[in-house]
Amino acid sequence: ECKPQQKFCGLTEFVGTAIGDTIGLVIANVDSQVHEAMGLDKKYRSIGILGARTGAGPHIFAADEAVKATNTEIIKIELPRDTKGGAGHGSLIIFGAEDVSDAKRAVEVALKELDRTFGDVYANDAGHLEFQYTARASYACNKAFNAPIGKAFGIIVGAPAAIGVLIADTAVKAANVDVIGYASPAGGTSFSNEVILFISGDSGAVRQAIIAAREVGVKLLGTMGEEPKPVTVPYI
Amino acid sequence: ECKPQQKFCGLTEFVGTAIGDTIGLVIANVDSQVHEAMGLDKKYRSIGILGARTGAGPHIFAADEAVKATNTEIIKIELPRDTKGGAGHGSLIIFGAEDVSDAKRAVEVALKELDRTFGDVYANDAGHLEFQYTARASYACNKAFNAPIGKAFGIIVGAPAAIGVLIADTAVKAANVDVIGYASPAGGTSFSNEVILFISGDSGAVRQAIIAAREVGVKLLGTMGEEPKPVTVPYI
Amino acid sequence: ECKPQQKFCGLTEFVGTAIGDTIGLVIANVDSQVHEAMGLDKKYRSIGILGARTGAGPHIFAADEAVKATNTEIIKIELPRDTKGGAGHGSLIIFGAEDVSDAKRAVEVALKELDRTFGDVYANDAGHLEFQYTARASYACNKAFNAPIGKAFGIIVGAPAAIGVLIADTAVKAANVDVIGYASPAGGTSFSNEVILFISGDSGAVRQAIIAAREVGVKLLGTMGEEPKPVTVPYI
Repeated sequence: ECKPQQKFCGLTEFVGTAIGDTIGLVIANVDSQVHEAMGLDKKYRSIGILGARTGAGPHIFAADEAVKATNTEIIKIELPRDTKGGAGHGSLIIFGAEDVSDAKRAVEVALKELDRTFGDVYANDAGHLEFQYTARASYACNKAFNAPIGKAFGIIVGAPAAIGVLIADTAVKAANVDVIGYASPAGGTSFSNEVILFISGDSGAVRQAIIAAREVGVKLLGTMGEEPKPVTVPYI
Repeated sequence: ECKPQQKFCGLTEFVGTAIGDTIGLVIANVDSQVHEAMGLDKKYRSIGILGARTGAGPHIFAADEAVKATNTEIIKIELPRDTKGGAGHGSLIIFGAEDVSDAKRAVEVALKELDRTFGDVYANDAGHLEFQYTARASYACNKAFNAPIGKAFGIIVGAPAAIGVLIADTAVKAANVDVIGYASPAGGTSFSNEVILFISGDSGAVRQAIIAAREVGVKLLGTMGEEPKPVTVPYI
Repeated sequence: ECKPQQKFCGLTEFVGTAIGDTIGLVIANVDSQVHEAMGLDKKYRSIGILGARTGAGPHIFAADEAVKATNTEIIKIELPRDTKGGAGHGSLIIFGAEDVSDAKRAVEVALKELDRTFGDVYANDAGHLEFQYTARASYACNKAFNAPIGKAFGIIVGAPAAIGVLIADTAVKAANVDVIGYASPAGGTSFSNEVILFISGDSGAVRQAIIAAREVGVKLLGTMGEEPKPVTVPYI
């Protein structure tokens, strides 16, 4: 069972915790000096905060559902080099809202989505693979990955980065998709040991490309250690 | 007991070790090619070297006391992304001196101060919090954090970064302080999973802001794991 | 015995694995969209891929032998901040070839060389030291470190970075060598906790400088923990 038991702390700003050492918080009315230091847009005094030690893709795709479902905007997505000694990123995502109840709702939706979005993360001691898919990309995927809004969109991640190069190639050969972007240790990541491919196109093709990459990735990472297992339940 | 047992190695350049995988060294007369490659100021042929795997704030505040107490200058402060799989930084601090005995004294003072400056570092498996305070900032805090020299100054650090955002807000709402700066994974850190707030002002107000942030931070980090404990003995 | 037992996966793209969580792969004909996204030179449709979680120096010096021995070119060297919680880098190295058999041969040579190039890596829980030497630098050392092609070349690495500063000085004082470069957490590394010195010159002098630094480095790192041991068998 992956869901950690929730602990509470009596603070109104606390929303919840989730897998990946994730915490969700809200601030109803951000102090004006902090607001300015953070470079936030004046129109949002309320913010939702989603942060994690392990995971950026799962959190961005979860936040993508949260902005679809609520009256909020994604105002910041930052990617620390983390994963607690692993090869990837953690995340810091800020939602802006005019009303704190909207910010809170966005954080709640995102926390709940994480169980799903960790479904196609596969890991062993040597590295990890991650696959994400949405039939209709929204503002979080657009802000973080330049995904065309409203179109099917997916990401293919391999770590160590060498595996990511190969499965990026596998994905694009498997179906007729558009390459939106490519990130690697020296460009587009925070020096993580990952290669990430961003693809868009027809929804069936995007899924087909991802599934082909996933099959090859699991075999390759398996040569470096134990058979990689999904963190939760695969959804793609 | 936090102080590791000191081991010696018979080299005159070795000064000592301390908590956080810290080592202190001196070079009496830096080789001219290395001096130039490092970009050091010509006037310092002797340097003191303080480096650690875990900790940047504790080392910078310790170095701040060392420059107050000795005839040295801070010539470099660099922040690797480290902490041995944790969410923060290690450090590399270089003191310049005209005489090696001054450089050595600075390193000795800094090594000794570390027991104190690790006092308000709280950690558990999910992350860490750090608070530092000085009644009178000197050249190390100025160089690293832009602290106004001679004024009360403090830092508030939360990791994962989401916690840092919230306790930054808590701090500034708790007392009348000036925000000097804000650092986050994508700006002002070496992609660490931290948000750091830098504050200055009246000494009572700076302490009050820090204490309020510390209380909230310990509660929040506690929702993600064990109750966070101070690394040594709190001093603020 | 350091060589991990090889596992195979039935993919023609798989070449092998090695120490340091290293994997070697080839792509016979890189997909045109991926080729463009990676920014590869048009003339190479075949690539060899060498990637690792732990180790950049060992892989670059291994790749240097591989380009000497094969009809390939080094087209990318990227350095993630990795080592699985350690203080250093992982690596992603791409060989370009007109024919996939050349790319494969380069990856095979590099994988085999790693046993040797990990020979002067010394580590304990507190950090690591690394020394590499070649009597005749080739294109990988040139691309990664600016080494003069055809000349004796070596690197001196100490982590935590404080140790690297001192042994850089030791090396240059021990023999008449030319300093080609200097890298530290804030410049020339991917925020790793290392100082790295790059030296060239007469082959005897380069070796002498490295041996002096190695002797001092092992003593210093030993003050911070267990006696540092070589990962495989020293070759310098």
